[in-house]
Amino acid sequence: MVYVNGAGFTKIGLLWEYSLEDLAVEAALKALEDSEVKSVDAIVVGNMTSGVMNSQENLGAVIADSLGMAGVPSIKVEAACGSGGAAIMWAAISIMSGLFDSALVIGVEKMTDVTDIPDQTSALATAANARYESSLGASFPSLNALIMREYMKEHGLSEEDFAHLPILMHKNAVDAKHAQLRFRISLEDYLKSPYISEPLRLLDSSPIGDGAAALVISSRRADESVEISGFGAATDVVSICQRDDLTRLRSVELAAKRALKMAHLEIRDIDLVQIHDAFSVMGYLNLEALGLVERGKAHIRVEGGDFNRDGWLPVNPEGGLKARGHPVGATGVYQVAEIYLQLSDRAGRCQVEGAETAIAVNIGGTGSNASVHILRRC
Amino acid sequence: MVYVNGAGFTKIGLLWEYSLEDLAVEAALKALEDSEVKSVDAIVVGNMTSGVMNSQENLGAVIADSLGMAGVPSIKVEAACGSGGAAIMWAAISIMSGLFDSALVIGVEKMTDVTDIPDQTSALATAANARYESSLGASFPSLNALIMREYMKEHGLSEEDFAHLPILMHKNAVDAKHAQLRFRISLEDYLKSPYISEPLRLLDSSPIGDGAAALVISSRRADESVEISGFGAATDVVSICQRDDLTRLRSVELAAKRALKMAHLEIRDIDLVQIHDAFSVMGYLNLEALGLVERGKAHIRVEGGDFNRDGWLPVNPEGGLKARGHPVGATGVYQVAEIYLQLSDRAGRCQVEGAETAIAVNIGGTGSNASVHILRRC
Repeated sequence: MVYVNGAGFTKIGLLWEYSLEDLAVEAALKALEDSEVKSVDAIVVGNMTSGVMNSQENLGAVIADSLGMAGVPSIKVEAACGSGGAAIMWAAISIMSGLFDSALVIGVEKMTDVTDIPDQTSALATAANARYESSLGASFPSLNALIMREYMKEHGLSEEDFAHLPILMHKNAVDAKHAQLRFRISLEDYLKSPYISEPLRLLDSSPIGDGAAALVISSRRADESVEISGFGAATDVVSICQRDDLTRLRSVELAAKRALKMAHLEIRDIDLVQIHDAFSVMGYLNLEALGLVERGKAHIRVEGGDFNRDGWLPVNPEGGLKARGHPVGATGVYQVAEIYLQLSDRAGRCQVEGAETAIAVNIGGTGSNASVHILRRC
Repeated sequence: MVYVNGAGFTKIGLLWEYSLEDLAVEAALKALEDSEVKSVDAIVVGNMTSGVMNSQENLGAVIADSLGMAGVPSIKVEAACGSGGAAIMWAAISIMSGLFDSALVIGVEKMTDVTDIPDQTSALATAANARYESSLGASFPSLNALIMREYMKEHGLSEEDFAHLPILMHKNAVDAKHAQLRFRISLEDYLKSPYISEPLRLLDSSPIGDGAAALVISSRRADESVEISGFGAATDVVSICQRDDLTRLRSVELAAKRALKMAHLEIRDIDLVQIHDAFSVMGYLNLEALGLVERGKAHIRVEGGDFNRDGWLPVNPEGGLKARGHPVGATGVYQVAEIYLQLSDRAGRCQVEGAETAIAVNIGGTGSNASVHILRRC
């Protein structure tokens, strides 16, 4: 068995006063303090762009050293925006191996020190296929716009139908102290917001931000432990032009199936969900891939309140990638850290009542990789 | 138990006709063919600079996709020049966990498509500390030159004393078909070679090259399996200016201690060694950290022939990083792939007679991370 025994994270935002290491250290020290653990057997860092954005690779050693933990084995795991989830999964695997008793997982991304070239959009585009996508000018907003356009065509949707998810996410984030965008938005705000890549708007898009989140995981159960009951990962074809179905996240379907099987659960057993809503359409596709909504119907269910904090099945009660924020390599760790707080009744004003089990979906690229974690109250 | 059941690699060199994916695919298909395995449960890619040099992150998914294996969980592990060794270790951990039966490890680096800025030296400098080293102009040749100068001072050595290791490595590489620099060098050649960063010369330095190596590892033993009996990793302080001893590789000492303990072996039980001789002085420090030579005496032992292919303890029989080549993130996988061929008596003209156990040391930065693997004939 693998348990989460502590979590910590920084506020997300334009944190000019923090370096990459500062972010990682703050989150890690909070997680260590929360877990009452003094030392760990391994460190796994989830990060995507430290090489391109911060001229810093060898990030495992750099962060171990910054923590005063030189000596401890430490690596960086990269899986684009899915780096954080991948880091948790591989750390959990190491606990299951019996080789390590405890591990520190740190997701970190420092996105605001990039001055000119490569800018953030170019740096993030390294998650796309360099030969068939990014070298031809495709960026993540434009790739998601293509997917959104196809999704609209398939299901006869209007642009307005995409407003419901960001409206809910912004509403939820108001209560999350660490969230980047703590203000409500209205349908009118959404429709007034500029196109980034038509039909995708500014208010469909998660913000650029700095942040770090950390978990202490262990084979030992403590008072406030939450169990990692299952996990799974999968990849998919990277270039969307080579996929046979543009609006289906096969990696999420497969990863969720593997995670649920490992946890001996079905999706209807889940009480709380974290989805990867980097763009509104991705949020909808996440819900579909989990089997929570029929294809093309997610907008109706979101608008109807099913996924509100007090709804049928709460989704992203802290505001998701859209409003809590999306420091890319850190996001997967934020998701599980927030579930940990929820399942140990410490989520403050974001608390969901009575949740026993939760699922987190973290993806990379346009779904070319995904990891899914299932957590359960002990 | 974890076994290596197949290995494959490309020639190392300036492979203009290969893309990053081409390299990975060639090595992986060879390893799969060698192992007679058709599918694997996970892929772990060791790579350092695909983001900075090739504008390609999300490398796990990109390579799984290129192999026609979309669906299989796949991540990139980054630990600077130690990425390959780290990838093997974490793949082995996943086999030990019982979660996966088989895994494909691919180390790959495509270093020759970088046209201007960042050039290779800058890209490699991301393995140093960005705040205290690389941003101040320190490159890996200059950092190693500082270490070399200190080592010379401590032990009263001349520049000539560093020639013995590259001379041996070049001699060994002549017999390795996949090696990048298949020619002998003399002491005179060494002393005539230009300084890169005084006192470190061109012929102290491993070359820039493209290459990929792959392993199929599994919980199942096959006919030509070689056992991974032990492994260990460690980090050290990253900036050399903050280390208390500039000429001691504590990460290697610690990683080797952990690996030997796991394998229930002592260093005197080892018959064959792979060291990380990115620069001559690093090669000497590797031998010292393993406890194979007294500090400051490595040059005498190398010159005396102790580490020749038919010597007391063969070291890098294929020519090491210096002459076989050093495609950074691939190097650790080449080392273990070569041990696999040695211990299954398929190393051709590089074959060492009668070796039963072998050790591989792969480091990142100036030793800020290290992984050590111990393999044993089944």
